[in-house]
Amino acid sequence: MRVIIFGATGSIGQSALHVIRQQRGQDSIQVRAITGNNNIEQLCKDAIEFNVERVVTANHDNLPKLKDTLIPYGIEVCSGPDAIVETSKMGSDWILSAIIGYNGVPPTLEAIKNCKTVAIANKESLVCAGKLVIDSAEKYQTTILPVDSEHNAIFQCLSGENLKSVRKVILTASGGPFRNWTIGEMKRAKLSQALAHPTWNMGQRISIDSATMFNKALELIEAKYFFQLKPEQLDVIVHPESLIHSMVCFCDNSTIAQLGPHDMSCAIAHTLNYPNRKPANINEIDFAAQGKFTFEAPDYQRFPALRLAHIVLETDGGLGVVFNAAKEVALDRFISGEIGFLDISCLVERVLTLPEMISLQHRSPGSIDEVSEINNMVRIIASEISLNKTGT
Amino acid sequence: MRVIIFGATGSIGQSALHVIRQQRGQDSIQVRAITGNNNIEQLCKDAIEFNVERVVTANHDNLPKLKDTLIPYGIEVCSGPDAIVETSKMGSDWILSAIIGYNGVPPTLEAIKNCKTVAIANKESLVCAGKLVIDSAEKYQTTILPVDSEHNAIFQCLSGENLKSVRKVILTASGGPFRNWTIGEMKRAKLSQALAHPTWNMGQRISIDSATMFNKALELIEAKYFFQLKPEQLDVIVHPESLIHSMVCFCDNSTIAQLGPHDMSCAIAHTLNYPNRKPANINEIDFAAQGKFTFEAPDYQRFPALRLAHIVLETDGGLGVVFNAAKEVALDRFISGEIGFLDISCLVERVLTLPEMISLQHRSPGSIDEVSEINNMVRIIASEISLNKTGT
Repeated sequence: MRVIIFGATGSIGQSALHVIRQQRGQDSIQVRAITGNNNIEQLCKDAIEFNVERVVTANHDNLPKLKDTLIPYGIEVCSGPDAIVETSKMGSDWILSAIIGYNGVPPTLEAIKNCKTVAIANKESLVCAGKLVIDSAEKYQTTILPVDSEHNAIFQCLSGENLKSVRKVILTASGGPFRNWTIGEMKRAKLSQALAHPTWNMGQRISIDSATMFNKALELIEAKYFFQLKPEQLDVIVHPESLIHSMVCFCDNSTIAQLGPHDMSCAIAHTLNYPNRKPANINEIDFAAQGKFTFEAPDYQRFPALRLAHIVLETDGGLGVVFNAAKEVALDRFISGEIGFLDISCLVERVLTLPEMISLQHRSPGSIDEVSEINNMVRIIASEISLNKTGT
Repeated sequence: MRVIIFGATGSIGQSALHVIRQQRGQDSIQVRAITGNNNIEQLCKDAIEFNVERVVTANHDNLPKLKDTLIPYGIEVCSGPDAIVETSKMGSDWILSAIIGYNGVPPTLEAIKNCKTVAIANKESLVCAGKLVIDSAEKYQTTILPVDSEHNAIFQCLSGENLKSVRKVILTASGGPFRNWTIGEMKRAKLSQALAHPTWNMGQRISIDSATMFNKALELIEAKYFFQLKPEQLDVIVHPESLIHSMVCFCDNSTIAQLGPHDMSCAIAHTLNYPNRKPANINEIDFAAQGKFTFEAPDYQRFPALRLAHIVLETDGGLGVVFNAAKEVALDRFISGEIGFLDISCLVERVLTLPEMISLQHRSPGSIDEVSEINNMVRIIASEISLNKTGT
């Protein structure tokens, strides 16, 4: 089995290599290519361990270092976003799209054209280019499988079922580190506090997205496209233990839930072995020791991201790109200390409700170039909006 | 669609008629025959409402009353256990086996020979004649579907999955009315207290079986045969809210659970419409209002039934019939006030460990006659064992 990993040095990419490391003894898995950004040390270490054919860094500045280390091993090296996109043309049976943020969108779309199975961890692909992804997978007869724990759960719950029988999909949310904080406390939340996720150990950007619940907002949009759902079929429940990864309620009052440990390896391995399942080291949930699962309704006031997601869900055009681009810029501005925690959603709301966005509500981008154009435009707008920083 | 209902006046039978009442508007469901025991009034009422072809009462004494009421409607009437067994020969697309206790076993086996789909609510069929049921279903190419909420849940969790990928099946148990009682309190438990099930509204015998957890013990044995599991693949967790109906843990650490309201209509409708799902009136779980699900390890000391089940699970012969027959007699003796609540499991253990039962451990009954013979023998033995009644 030939595999390629986009975003190999990130949290998901590393988990994927961990899964492959465990499985390659029994299966002949050949890692053809890995890509990364600035963590060149890790990239080189993995390239050598897995004896890959090609390594790509998104950042041209890293090319000399990559060359020095890997050319002696006969490994091809290259750099830049276009080189990443081109890499899927090498062909593979399974490709993992695990680059975070909008940068993961163009490689995912190209991968769908060139690979048999695309395991999608980059939620922005569905959020920004949902229709393109689905149409392209159909056109090229490519299997797309969700890696996000929620969507992977939904996919598993739908096994053997007819999408037409689905009444509702319920995405579970941990509630993040600020689940019990007051609005006043959230206003003054520091970066370090936003990074302290209670259950999952993830990268920096996704941890903050979890604190704002923008993560869940993106997942709602992702689920809409992945499973072809109507906005009223999408729901969120806060489940702080994060052991139920998501649920599907059917029209006959039966609900199927998928549960698992807090370990992305499970979802990654699921997509790698699909439609089979391969034994993993036992790490099962001990229900008696766990004692209870709790549930709370999400608070739309403290977490406006969920409310804003519905603006996007109700339309079928290019607002997903707008939503995501505005969120990415807002996140950068929060990380840099320029705006406060609650300003992240204020900024997204400001952008989403600008008069120039109205025309995008029902015009779906017809190509990746059009998606990129909207993305770039929104990033400029979102960077220029000035906010009175709250919480200072 | 032609249907037959064995045990139409019981709790499950009535729920089935309720489901058919709701669905027959859209589907042309024709109830060909219903059977009952002594609730002749209900039996006649339903026979007339559903315009059935034949009505059978297990009790010959009830035949005159049945004739008086139903012959004017042109409905064929008959009586006796053999007449019930014969009824499945009318043929049907879906037959519900919902007679409680051992009496449901012979009709189930005959139904498998004559009907397309047999929905099994009578757990004793699998407990007493598991191998016969499975072999017969294969021989006659009959679909057998589980109606018990736990087994129906497991069946749903296995949709689209390979049985070989199953690590473990976890049956959930409400814990019954005595979940938090001490051994001393349980010793003195009265019939009325054993009948007060906290979550499910069921018939008398099954409610007491739930209080002793013999219900769960039978379900473990039933699950072993239904899903071809090894004893070590079967587990029980106490989940007092009874909303998770059961779970399947796969070899890759993914667990699938089925959830639903406390309403047997769901499982019945699932088997009636399988492999499709039909919309039901919304009665969905409100997770936020529910707030939490709790879990406890079962207490094998206060509920010896679970421990005794493992004696049966570890063997592959006729001990299931012994276990069930002894339990049925013990239940009768408790209901009549002859023995105390905790004596039920003492009596079953006494019978199960008698020297004459050893030969049955690995000799699987080869026919329903052999099963009936063991059943009759054990009933006599279990009736004659004298116990010092506890709790008085």
